Amino acid sequence: MSNPLLLPELRSLLADKNETELREMLSELHPASVADFSEGLSVEETWELLSLAPIERQEEIFTFYPHSKQEQLASGVGRERMSSLLERMSHDDRVDLLKQLDDEVVDNLLPLVAKAEREDIRRLMSYAEHTVGSVMTTDYAALPPDVSVDDAVARLRRQAPAAETIYFVYVVDKEHHLLGVVSLRDLILAKSGAIIRDLMQSDPVSVQADQDREDVAREVAKYDLLAIPVVDSQNRMVGIVTHDDVADVVKEEATEDFHLTAAIAPLTKGYGHSGIWPLYHRRIGWLVILVFVNLVSSGVIAAYEDVLAAAITLAFFLPLLIDSGGNTGSQAATLIIRALATGEIQLTQWWKVLVKELAVGISLGLTMALASAALGYFRGGVEIGLIVGLSMLCIVFTTNLVGVLLPFILTRLKVDPAVASSPLITTVADASGLLIYFTIATWVIDLPTTS
Amino acid sequence: MSNPLLLPELRSLLADKNETELREMLSELHPASVADFSEGLSVEETWELLSLAPIERQEEIFTFYPHSKQEQLASGVGRERMSSLLERMSHDDRVDLLKQLDDEVVDNLLPLVAKAEREDIRRLMSYAEHTVGSVMTTDYAALPPDVSVDDAVARLRRQAPAAETIYFVYVVDKEHHLLGVVSLRDLILAKSGAIIRDLMQSDPVSVQADQDREDVAREVAKYDLLAIPVVDSQNRMVGIVTHDDVADVVKEEATEDFHLTAAIAPLTKGYGHSGIWPLYHRRIGWLVILVFVNLVSSGVIAAYEDVLAAAITLAFFLPLLIDSGGNTGSQAATLIIRALATGEIQLTQWWKVLVKELAVGISLGLTMALASAALGYFRGGVEIGLIVGLSMLCIVFTTNLVGVLLPFILTRLKVDPAVASSPLITTVADASGLLIYFTIATWVIDLPTTS
Repeated sequence: MSNPLLLPELRSLLADKNETELREMLSELHPASVADFSEGLSVEETWELLSLAPIERQEEIFTFYPHSKQEQLASGVGRERMSSLLERMSHDDRVDLLKQLDDEVVDNLLPLVAKAEREDIRRLMSYAEHTVGSVMTTDYAALPPDVSVDDAVARLRRQAPAAETIYFVYVVDKEHHLLGVVSLRDLILAKSGAIIRDLMQSDPVSVQADQDREDVAREVAKYDLLAIPVVDSQNRMVGIVTHDDVADVVKEEATEDFHLTAAIAPLTKGYGHSGIWPLYHRRIGWLVILVFVNLVSSGVIAAYEDVLAAAITLAFFLPLLIDSGGNTGSQAATLIIRALATGEIQLTQWWKVLVKELAVGISLGLTMALASAALGYFRGGVEIGLIVGLSMLCIVFTTNLVGVLLPFILTRLKVDPAVASSPLITTVADASGLLIYFTIATWVIDLPTTS
Repeated sequence: MSNPLLLPELRSLLADKNETELREMLSELHPASVADFSEGLSVEETWELLSLAPIERQEEIFTFYPHSKQEQLASGVGRERMSSLLERMSHDDRVDLLKQLDDEVVDNLLPLVAKAEREDIRRLMSYAEHTVGSVMTTDYAALPPDVSVDDAVARLRRQAPAAETIYFVYVVDKEHHLLGVVSLRDLILAKSGAIIRDLMQSDPVSVQADQDREDVAREVAKYDLLAIPVVDSQNRMVGIVTHDDVADVVKEEATEDFHLTAAIAPLTKGYGHSGIWPLYHRRIGWLVILVFVNLVSSGVIAAYEDVLAAAITLAFFLPLLIDSGGNTGSQAATLIIRALATGEIQLTQWWKVLVKELAVGISLGLTMALASAALGYFRGGVEIGLIVGLSMLCIVFTTNLVGVLLPFILTRLKVDPAVASSPLITTVADASGLLIYFTIATWVIDLPTTS
């Protein structure tokens, strides 16, 4: 939505060629705001405005335009401007940008891009989402093994302007097989006559382009790397992933886990860029599935309908008991899921965690039982107090156990344990909580049993 | 818990001085496993084993020992070994290590550490948790402004072995005021006679040591920095934070948000290192608070007890309706909380989000209403179908709205919106869901009104 108050002002600044003020605005406002109020400009005007910002800024603003505006900017009269922007951008960023556009627009655009760049784009775009290839860049610095340090530094000087980083330089043979890595630090410290082959670290940590991008994040974090080389199945170097892209992967994966935990299918474009349909679509699936899972709880209530009718005071404590169960289970599951995701605990340590959590579960259960027994007593006397307290103890203990074990079991079954964990555990907690509550109630007070 | 099967084997390897096999084991096993089965060794034996590993590995293994073992290793006969390890470690890592120990042990240990290092440790340890100072390191590379590139590279060669990074070099005056930054890339590309002052980027992005560590993460991500300089209130340089430490901060903050969302107070040591008491302690608080918040729901049920008693079939749909409300609210809140945390949406954009979510809420509500009306019809006929469907529509719409708005309101009130968000919203959803359900039920069927 364009801001009608600012648009005329912006237009007049453009007409007056008031570059100072426009540049200032471009650098000071959030790219989202710039996109917001420049949306009403024509394609020509928009490119005129964008060209005043540094390349990275142009790209950021571009990503904040709605899809239709992006398509306009990249087709028709905008094609030429777009292609020259693409030629100057870093190799991984431009692929990210192109992925936002429709295939047809990209196909019309690419012929205008220089051939070498075009092939690079095609290669990078061919990697599937969530693979290492989809986050890597091809503009890395490389050296043959048999040059001297002096020669190497001279070569690096030539490669520096185009390379994403020159702090790690990859040593490759003529067929581009990855032989080793040498840091600029080592080059600076080495004697000028030394040969790269003797200086390099052989067999460096690397990842394959078709691996999961989470693997890259794990390796980079483990070895505190600045960049990691990416190879194909023949150990030929095809790119690098740098620390800032790894940071983005870590952030996106955490966001995905947050969403999964709340039963939201991962959004491809982030919340800010997602419209009503994707948001609906990603949420409704699990909501409807959970309705049916919830029928188990309804079934338990139906089975004990007579019990409930005979002692309607029991209904008073229903939300309290099932929610406490859900809360306890979610807490436990969240702790385990996150600890597994960060590698803080291993799958094989499940028994150790179990022993610890049995003790935690008992302690939590006893405390909660005391609190709720008191409430039960005030509300309905000794019997109700006993029922509520005892139920709470069993529910908290059980749901804690479910919350602890479920992530281990799901991980073992190669299912992401974050998937819908909180609502799923809440639902399981409901059903088991109701069962425990009604069973204990029928024991303690003389009520009609299940019909 | 030590593994009694492996301990004798380990002891015999140590006695035989079989360093090859021990080193192999140290590098191949996870530090946690090494800590696990070497726990039974004496202090002397443990240090003998540790000294075979590289420094970083020693430190990792150390952190996996239980507290009591760590104290033993750092006091008595272990003091000397520990102090020499501390002298060789990087400045930020050793402070992290010392923070795990009791003050008394640290006080006994520090006199054995070289004076300059000791003062550095004291200074770094004095920063409060969650500040920039607590994650920075003091071993950075610095240059005066008036040296030539050649001279600068020569100085860097001398600083390189001790510095955490030499890829960014900070230009400071005699009083250590931060004047600028120059990258090693720029130094390599510059003419050898050029003066640093002309080459450096002035007024670099920096953070203050007492700022929140989250600020560092945000700045580093924004500018894709490798390292960021840390200054005091007089702009005197006191340290740097490097990209790998930023990655740790991001990971820890995400973990904290995961825990907060599930109503767990942040763990100081991570799940793997937390015993039963801290785990109990961090969880019970919110669980008990939520019991009392839940009394609102109980109150609603109590108010409509007669309605429920008169039409006990309504109980069948209780879990379904309140859980769906909770799930919808949690989904919405999670989306907003995460988008606010990653900076994808801004606080000021609340109205834009609201408009979008009104549409999403209606769509979700209508779909869910259809599904549950069908269930209601099968179970209890037209009237029940109508009640359940209509209630579901209102509940999903309302809880979605609550889930969307609550994070904005909490952020505005300077409360972390992640705090207990899921259980809190579930509880609010329960109370409002019950109220909606019973109100609609009393409208549709001729039931006794609230007594």
